[in-house]
Amino acid sequence: MKEAKLKVELIAHTPDPERTIATAAHMCYAGVTVDELKTKLSDEQVAKLLKMLITSGHHSTLEHASFTFAIEGVSRALTHQLVRHRIASYSQQSQRYVNEENMAFIVPPKVRANKEQLKAFEEAMEQTREAYKKMIDAGIPKEDARFILPNAVETRIVVTMNTRALFNFLDHRLCTRAQWEIRVMAHMMLKELKKVAPGLFNERGPICYSLGYCPEPKTCGLYPLKKDVIPEKKEKWKYE
Amino acid sequence: MKEAKLKVELIAHTPDPERTIATAAHMCYAGVTVDELKTKLSDEQVAKLLKMLITSGHHSTLEHASFTFAIEGVSRALTHQLVRHRIASYSQQSQRYVNEENMAFIVPPKVRANKEQLKAFEEAMEQTREAYKKMIDAGIPKEDARFILPNAVETRIVVTMNTRALFNFLDHRLCTRAQWEIRVMAHMMLKELKKVAPGLFNERGPICYSLGYCPEPKTCGLYPLKKDVIPEKKEKWKYE
Amino acid sequence: MKEAKLKVELIAHTPDPERTIATAAHMCYAGVTVDELKTKLSDEQVAKLLKMLITSGHHSTLEHASFTFAIEGVSRALTHQLVRHRIASYSQQSQRYVNEENMAFIVPPKVRANKEQLKAFEEAMEQTREAYKKMIDAGIPKEDARFILPNAVETRIVVTMNTRALFNFLDHRLCTRAQWEIRVMAHMMLKELKKVAPGLFNERGPICYSLGYCPEPKTCGLYPLKKDVIPEKKEKWKYE
Amino acid sequence: MKEAKLKVELIAHTPDPERTIATAAHMCYAGVTVDELKTKLSDEQVAKLLKMLITSGHHSTLEHASFTFAIEGVSRALTHQLVRHRIASYSQQSQRYVNEENMAFIVPPKVRANKEQLKAFEEAMEQTREAYKKMIDAGIPKEDARFILPNAVETRIVVTMNTRALFNFLDHRLCTRAQWEIRVMAHMMLKELKKVAPGLFNERGPICYSLGYCPEPKTCGLYPLKKDVIPEKKEKWKYE
Repeated sequence: MKEAKLKVELIAHTPDPERTIATAAHMCYAGVTVDELKTKLSDEQVAKLLKMLITSGHHSTLEHASFTFAIEGVSRALTHQLVRHRIASYSQQSQRYVNEENMAFIVPPKVRANKEQLKAFEEAMEQTREAYKKMIDAGIPKEDARFILPNAVETRIVVTMNTRALFNFLDHRLCTRAQWEIRVMAHMMLKELKKVAPGLFNERGPICYSLGYCPEPKTCGLYPLKKDVIPEKKEKWKYE
Repeated sequence: MKEAKLKVELIAHTPDPERTIATAAHMCYAGVTVDELKTKLSDEQVAKLLKMLITSGHHSTLEHASFTFAIEGVSRALTHQLVRHRIASYSQQSQRYVNEENMAFIVPPKVRANKEQLKAFEEAMEQTREAYKKMIDAGIPKEDARFILPNAVETRIVVTMNTRALFNFLDHRLCTRAQWEIRVMAHMMLKELKKVAPGLFNERGPICYSLGYCPEPKTCGLYPLKKDVIPEKKEKWKYE
Repeated sequence: MKEAKLKVELIAHTPDPERTIATAAHMCYAGVTVDELKTKLSDEQVAKLLKMLITSGHHSTLEHASFTFAIEGVSRALTHQLVRHRIASYSQQSQRYVNEENMAFIVPPKVRANKEQLKAFEEAMEQTREAYKKMIDAGIPKEDARFILPNAVETRIVVTMNTRALFNFLDHRLCTRAQWEIRVMAHMMLKELKKVAPGLFNERGPICYSLGYCPEPKTCGLYPLKKDVIPEKKEKWKYE
Repeated sequence: MKEAKLKVELIAHTPDPERTIATAAHMCYAGVTVDELKTKLSDEQVAKLLKMLITSGHHSTLEHASFTFAIEGVSRALTHQLVRHRIASYSQQSQRYVNEENMAFIVPPKVRANKEQLKAFEEAMEQTREAYKKMIDAGIPKEDARFILPNAVETRIVVTMNTRALFNFLDHRLCTRAQWEIRVMAHMMLKELKKVAPGLFNERGPICYSLGYCPEPKTCGLYPLKKDVIPEKKEKWKYE
């Protein structure tokens, strides 16, 4: 069984993403011209503006910078979750067009940790690979032969998200309740993002880290539950 | 091997979808009040407005009516394609939370048509089911055991799309180049839609049926290629 | 000067919106068939599921129910803000196609409260109306004559949003920092929504009401600032 | 009356947009690794891939490259149309926060061409400016004083769109039926886009230029109506 290795590479992004966002925000609040816009902001002003935008939740400005990742060594289980983030663009390796005879597989850590289960897993994957090859040899089209391919098969994908969509993605996928595989990938993406836009991403983490409490019914312990931080509402909100 | 049966059911939709859309369109072009809006349009006017909106491409008004389908008996190969339609809402049966020991499978017609391949397919699926059961029994979490589940496993999903998104979905998924399974499903959805909104959906078909030509590099023969219908451009477009 | 009167009418919505959403959510977590889906949930189960979905932030399910409003008596200042909510559908009365000679106006309360300013406002609006009429009479197209029409001119619009988009809209537009006019409209929408879907909307209010703190740099006093509720982070989040 | 001057500046974009898109598309159809992805494509291959993607309508790949424009000298009439393109990001100069006492105005060409109307227009605008100033001096908040500001007042905006959204924007806003002002702006944007991504934008024009016919009820004459190009359907589409 060939095992896949996760790789996350930032292949393109809006140049100078922090300044681009700060510039757009500056357009909203200051009566500046386009020419003034290009020269007016010092590095300190950029940093200050970003901090204000992020903490006060004025996140639409964050959309002006986008980041494109090429990713390999992930399972179809992962990408089926990933592509549910709809404010993003995806180009995924097609099982309809690409022959998968040399497929590699993703092994869940809890399977790897269990010798017996790992052996069973490897045998199942090897059987699948052979069955796939036989179907292809028998003239079954790739788009039909793939019906027997498991979630564990490696896939590759190019993903573009803007900063705001990435905040949401990281909020949810860095949570310890997220699936282990997408959590590893989210963390690798975050590491790349911090290199090119630390002012945007240095303070990113799971959603509890931003909220100050865990919004789920049960906490992993990192942050207390909402009800243990926020005093219960005494009365309903009333329009005044 | 338990085989899944495709089922498409329209479980909810905007009431009177055609009139709702026509009413919204009427708001754009006529100087009417909200009260006038509710009483002014005859059935003939509704039909005429819809026809005009659809043929002239003023499709934003079509978004005011939405349709919710519950779908079962489809493969994960299908839903991985389906959820790539991003202007839509999805709630899919989770392989992280639902035990799949009684899983059913989708069999591609070209596999079914080949006795030998069908037998191999059934054996592979049965082996997978047993291997999955053993992993669960050995204490592997469902979210990890599912790594060995194939694309062929049945999944269920609730999908909501507005009329405009459905037009786009049908344009592409009724095409003979679409995957056979999603094409069958698209056609079943279209049949349901025609029952409740014939004025919107009676003229729907693959994209060639709307364009009047096939936009792909090769045609299935239903419509001629664009280059065989549209005279070649004599000159570049120039702004005047 | 003819004054406009704000009117908000819910003209269509997904039937039984709460059950539709609960049904979709049920599909995710339970291994039910489409047939079981239609009969299995009691009213109590629906209510309990909705509460869980809303408080734990699993909001994608909320998208399966949509609401369509017809609105009149609002300014172009309001709609310019409204249409910035992009996950929504709009059909607005067109100043290119509709003759505005009988236009009505929206008067800001702080102008109304100042007798002198109100008089000046009324005169300015009346002058504008006459100037517009003269331009139309002189053969200037409506789309050009409208350049002199002020933000205060009444406009009418049909808006469709799903429940999740409405939550976001209400979060931000019920805040006392929102513009007064859109805040009044948001509250009128909320009142209509509570009538047809109390389980979804009874607990809606400005974002502070959901978060338990005010995320803005300054609070209106309804809720304390985040820093006064959430203990300061002792250390950066670290992936483990 | 101070007159505004339209300015369109491309302030940021995905580096090497054509190669970024071609790379993402290459991921879909070829069984390449991330490393191979970065080196495999020659300039000729990039050009060929782009052409194929564009003509065959596989436009999701075009989303991987985004373009950010800073724009000044446009009316609020224009931006109210612009922001209706929802797959885009906007940061607009706020009339709630920015004092408009030195406001400039956009003059429609058909007003300018009519000496008498131009004079009336200038007087109306000058009166408005003075009335606005008086309201501000009287303590009316900017967000309320702006109610008397006309559509003609200059606004400034930062816009980010991806290539696919730009194709749609140009399709509709380069049409001779589009409002004159947004059409001028669309053309200025197109000129900038051709400089940095000719392979993507050289063949862009109004939608008729792509379709080969005019989809509107009446044509401006540039292309014939659909019914004069496409033979009438002999029969309804039937699923086979």
